[in-house]
Amino acid sequence: MSKKATYEKIATKANVSLATISRAMNNPIHVKKETKDKVLNAMQELGMDCSVIENMKQVENNLIIFNIPSLNNPFYSEIINGARDCANKNRYSLLISEEIIKERNINSFIDMIKTSHAAGLITTNIIPSNLLEKINDIIPVTQCCEYNDKLKLPYVSIDDIQASKNVVDYLLSLKREKIAFLNGPLKYKYARERLIGYKDSLVCANIELDETLICEIPEINYDIALATCHQLLNSNKKVDAIFAASDIYAIAAIKAIKQTNLKIPRDIAVVGFDNIPLTYMTSPTITTVNQPKYQLGIYSCSMLIQHINKDISPIESMKLDTEIIIRESSANWLNKNT
Amino acid sequence: MSKKATYEKIATKANVSLATISRAMNNPIHVKKETKDKVLNAMQELGMDCSVIENMKQVENNLIIFNIPSLNNPFYSEIINGARDCANKNRYSLLISEEIIKERNINSFIDMIKTSHAAGLITTNIIPSNLLEKINDIIPVTQCCEYNDKLKLPYVSIDDIQASKNVVDYLLSLKREKIAFLNGPLKYKYARERLIGYKDSLVCANIELDETLICEIPEINYDIALATCHQLLNSNKKVDAIFAASDIYAIAAIKAIKQTNLKIPRDIAVVGFDNIPLTYMTSPTITTVNQPKYQLGIYSCSMLIQHINKDISPIESMKLDTEIIIRESSANWLNKNT
Repeated sequence: MSKKATYEKIATKANVSLATISRAMNNPIHVKKETKDKVLNAMQELGMDCSVIENMKQVENNLIIFNIPSLNNPFYSEIINGARDCANKNRYSLLISEEIIKERNINSFIDMIKTSHAAGLITTNIIPSNLLEKINDIIPVTQCCEYNDKLKLPYVSIDDIQASKNVVDYLLSLKREKIAFLNGPLKYKYARERLIGYKDSLVCANIELDETLICEIPEINYDIALATCHQLLNSNKKVDAIFAASDIYAIAAIKAIKQTNLKIPRDIAVVGFDNIPLTYMTSPTITTVNQPKYQLGIYSCSMLIQHINKDISPIESMKLDTEIIIRESSANWLNKNT
Repeated sequence: MSKKATYEKIATKANVSLATISRAMNNPIHVKKETKDKVLNAMQELGMDCSVIENMKQVENNLIIFNIPSLNNPFYSEIINGARDCANKNRYSLLISEEIIKERNINSFIDMIKTSHAAGLITTNIIPSNLLEKINDIIPVTQCCEYNDKLKLPYVSIDDIQASKNVVDYLLSLKREKIAFLNGPLKYKYARERLIGYKDSLVCANIELDETLICEIPEINYDIALATCHQLLNSNKKVDAIFAASDIYAIAAIKAIKQTNLKIPRDIAVVGFDNIPLTYMTSPTITTVNQPKYQLGIYSCSMLIQHINKDISPIESMKLDTEIIIRESSANWLNKNT
């Protein structure tokens, strides 16, 4: 019988999920006593050798790991505040791991999870299915913001299509029609969905799509975004608005527009995405989409704790709403220097 | 015999440090095998009961925790990159803890260290001596940037007096004489030393000190700094330069000066501190003091790993040099909009 078939047999007998059986086999030190007993009984009834699980000592595990791809994007800070508050309320500690999880470092990442005796993991970046499965075999995982929907792991995110459509609808209401879109790489769900929203809005307004106004920037990087904006502004496209899928891109757009001696928002309106604190420190302040960052943190952590405590639970993913915060970079009436 | 006297006796006998004995007693799971054996032998020779230490199972511990007071200050990001690169090279993982360690949360912090099986801790914020001692009794600690020098724990930092003196000397060379100083709270070593540097430079230049030009801002917070700058600009002090002890304060100063319709640097030159990425994204770009952030991370982590591996080692703290990066906020010749 294959390993998977064996695990399925035990899972059915013990009435726990397949992932729980994987965890009991791979990382039994982290499985709760009641669960361990259930699995042990099932294995005994099935006449299997259960010495591996039996001999493992139980340790206290009340650590949650919050993985982010980069500390350089201030976007994650408030999400982590929400997650930490929820963790502490439930007597868990929270530590932050800054790492892009890839084939290359998956083993050291899993070693870290095991040696730190983490009870659960929150991810915020896209992780390939096979790697995410490996991790979920060790500890419960919930996804926050960016998620992989192939594995049916729970997530909390925002409705990116609607959020993006709202921005373009808003810019159209300001009589802007040459709206450039600075997007992230399409490997990310947020970028694919924001592109759909952008196109949907233009189609609804009967505006012909100009693909040359769509720029895909390979990473959240100010310098690359700045160079891209200069190209765009030098291209004689007569852009009258820039919608940036990240506030970092919007900050670069503002710099490029100023360097070209155009006025914001008179000549070009700028809208960002995320509402990081920087957006109200710049001049002009930046209109942006506010993500409910603190709530994203709270929900992802409380979903994780539910999953740590229950063995079989239905996937209760959710998408939260966003809002547009109007500031000087798009509103003439706010900005003395239009 | 008091606990301390007993520990001292064992330490002398085993030829290890007092802190190692504390760790062996409080957290024996984390003490290396050779060290444990030394301590056990010493205790046996002294006729003591060593069952506590003997019975503890050894676990692999290759986790380093990097504590920062706030993710909101982008200053720490590059330091953490340095520390992580050093940790990974030495086969350690690094996780980030965002927490201001106080009397109120010391117990949960210590619980987290114990349950995560951390091998060592790097701190970047001031920690009261009694709490730092408690932590150092559990795992080796090195301090980075801000440090407590009462405990003789190793640290790596910068020469804040000299760095600050360099900035004021530079502003004086630009013929600025009404130099306001936006400082942090004097409970921090960096704030005390930067104040000394500021005053030293003025004294050397025979400029009378005007205490009303020195503002102590209670935390690294943009909004408080903005309000403080507005007060300063409205006070008829005819300030012609602002030296900000943090780039976040410098960003607030630039905003306030623009809102007052004064020109930067023509009317007021601005210099920040830290060289966070934001300082070259703003308009004008901001002159600032570059801290060798990546090196601070590398050195603090390699000092920690030395301490994890050795039992008695001399304190080899160090102070790194800084440099001034001149940008538009102070240099007329760089800025078209003076």
